[in-house]
Amino acid sequence: MVASEVRALFAVASRPEIVSLAGGMPHVDGLPLETLGELMAELTRERGGTALQYGSAQGDPGLRESVCGVMSLEGIDAHPDDVVVTVGSQQALDLVARVFLDPGDTVVTEGPTYVTALGVFAACQARVAQVAMDEEGVDPGALAETFGRLAAEGRPAKLFYTVPTFQNPAGVTLSAERRAAVSEVCRRAGVLVIEDNPYGLLHYDRGEPMRALRADDPTGVVYLGSFSKTLAPGLRVGWALAPGPVRDKLVLAAESAMLSHSVFSQLVVDRYLRTQPWAEQLKEFRELYRERRDAMLRSLEAHMPRGVRWTSPGGGFFVWASLPEGLDSKALLPRAVGARVAYVPGTGFYADGGGRSHMRLSFCYPPIERIEEGVQRLASVIGEELTLRDTLGLAPGAER
Amino acid sequence: MVASEVRALFAVASRPEIVSLAGGMPHVDGLPLETLGELMAELTRERGGTALQYGSAQGDPGLRESVCGVMSLEGIDAHPDDVVVTVGSQQALDLVARVFLDPGDTVVTEGPTYVTALGVFAACQARVAQVAMDEEGVDPGALAETFGRLAAEGRPAKLFYTVPTFQNPAGVTLSAERRAAVSEVCRRAGVLVIEDNPYGLLHYDRGEPMRALRADDPTGVVYLGSFSKTLAPGLRVGWALAPGPVRDKLVLAAESAMLSHSVFSQLVVDRYLRTQPWAEQLKEFRELYRERRDAMLRSLEAHMPRGVRWTSPGGGFFVWASLPEGLDSKALLPRAVGARVAYVPGTGFYADGGGRSHMRLSFCYPPIERIEEGVQRLASVIGEELTLRDTLGLAPGAER
Repeated sequence: MVASEVRALFAVASRPEIVSLAGGMPHVDGLPLETLGELMAELTRERGGTALQYGSAQGDPGLRESVCGVMSLEGIDAHPDDVVVTVGSQQALDLVARVFLDPGDTVVTEGPTYVTALGVFAACQARVAQVAMDEEGVDPGALAETFGRLAAEGRPAKLFYTVPTFQNPAGVTLSAERRAAVSEVCRRAGVLVIEDNPYGLLHYDRGEPMRALRADDPTGVVYLGSFSKTLAPGLRVGWALAPGPVRDKLVLAAESAMLSHSVFSQLVVDRYLRTQPWAEQLKEFRELYRERRDAMLRSLEAHMPRGVRWTSPGGGFFVWASLPEGLDSKALLPRAVGARVAYVPGTGFYADGGGRSHMRLSFCYPPIERIEEGVQRLASVIGEELTLRDTLGLAPGAER
Repeated sequence: MVASEVRALFAVASRPEIVSLAGGMPHVDGLPLETLGELMAELTRERGGTALQYGSAQGDPGLRESVCGVMSLEGIDAHPDDVVVTVGSQQALDLVARVFLDPGDTVVTEGPTYVTALGVFAACQARVAQVAMDEEGVDPGALAETFGRLAAEGRPAKLFYTVPTFQNPAGVTLSAERRAAVSEVCRRAGVLVIEDNPYGLLHYDRGEPMRALRADDPTGVVYLGSFSKTLAPGLRVGWALAPGPVRDKLVLAAESAMLSHSVFSQLVVDRYLRTQPWAEQLKEFRELYRERRDAMLRSLEAHMPRGVRWTSPGGGFFVWASLPEGLDSKALLPRAVGARVAYVPGTGFYADGGGRSHMRLSFCYPPIERIEEGVQRLASVIGEELTLRDTLGLAPGAER
């Protein structure tokens, strides 16, 4: 039901007078739409008989080859045979969960974690244990402890679901130093890693992408990728890269779930990658999002009342803000919407109702002036709330 | 694993020297590809910012309105609010199964039934009971008996999955007389009907489409529709029409499964329906498929050895052939492929290994001369097998 709350929120947030810092929508207007349209027309004219027909459940071989090229940017040496094309990486996650999880199984995730991943695990009737992060992502020691505790409780973790790079919603990145240790901890515990990496190529402070967990662990990781943020979500092209036996199960699950993905969408992406200067386009996107991130961080710094803290993401779409103790981001939301700004309350990103004093702020979609305006409005709402609590004699944390 | 066998077969059947009577691929080359390409280019140019962005989990409101117009041709009076757009009707079926079926639940289907529906039910660990058909579809009495027997066994049926019109694979249609009785039997037994109707508008002998089961039973039926056969499977646009409470669950399941469908695909279909003479196009498809069906029936009549029987479909894509007793369609397949013709053996359409003496023959994809050639080749293989058995003194049925 968490997902439906988020949906209701997005419906409100889409009103034009409201600055939405809620949604994770990429800047598709920045794409060369004229060129993309021409490419589609050409494809339909030249190869319509194939592009508009049923395809294979695993996905188009040419696209799977291109996908391997994209992943090589993150240090991954993969074979097209091990790629399964999916309806965004969301479907990849859903298929992985369906293949691996029985009711009652336990999944470990970061805390907070991607809201709709929690929805997928809930649909499988799996239990979720979350491991807190600091500015370098999860601590391998805390992860090992969690695995140990779960095993001792007779419900060993089956999967570790992680968004290691520019995490959604926290905006933090698992440091290079910790990556090997996290892989090792999972390997020792016999836990399969699900590395969800939609933002890896959207890095704003580094010269090149982070090396993926999968790059150094070909057998212990199922990697999920997506063109939704680097190209366009409306095409719904994502993928899973999985070791052979897992891949076979994913193909069967994909067939049962949808017969085959849209061949047209797949060929559009493949042709775009092969014929267009997509690396240049990505660079433009990185510059645009970097400016938006900087604007958000500057505005937060300039306007937020004392006691509010936030993360400083090196890429991706999200800042994770923490309110002074006692403030409840969900209770605050109606007032924020009244002040014409929206965000996602932190509780959606926890399986256990945690996250009440947190909120996710997206900088990906609104233009800079709107981001500044939105953060100012939000800062006022928080400031007023703090003043009100002072007046009423509610010291921070008094409610607890 | 049935699905993977079929896939392996299709890989063989796609070799150019082989006449494939196996696949159910529509004739997309008959579409106005130039026009469709232009429409896509226009859409991307004019509305790319929307078409390439994330959409709602329920699907585009305009398309859902158009879908209601399409369903009205089958007597259905539906509201766009009750439509959920899916990745083909395959995903609709998958979502329905996930919403309704727990492991061990029982689904009743026709026997034979659509192969990948069996895959979906198997993935949910549901049990399947099949009811035989005659030339008028399932017999309502036999259906009631099955429901009664299952209830007495302590495993009452939860769903009745039916392809009532131009059934896949049997090519038969539930008669108008029986429709009301089947609905009544299901209503009395408290069994929800899943009406899967991808072929309803592809009727070759009637002036207008059959009236859908859903038309006279708005609360007891979840209707599944698809543009894969009437437009193009490569766009992967299907839908479910469901009573409100079911629809809400399907929307949540869709969100978990893929976040949202491709907005682009949805808008292409919607714009095609609103701006192109699609009823005329459909009429052309009906004429083309009617000629292919007639060619297949004529060839079967002219070439098949005595003892082979087949159905005479009034629409859709498939003829269901029955071999003389003792002949095994799966054992025969390698020899048929050797003689450069392929079909789908009947066992794939049964949950219990039945159907060994049956085969599905598709007339939708190969041109008329190829259909004639394919049926001749197949008739020779069957004839040789019968002669061989005569020579060896194996009377029909002797093995049983």
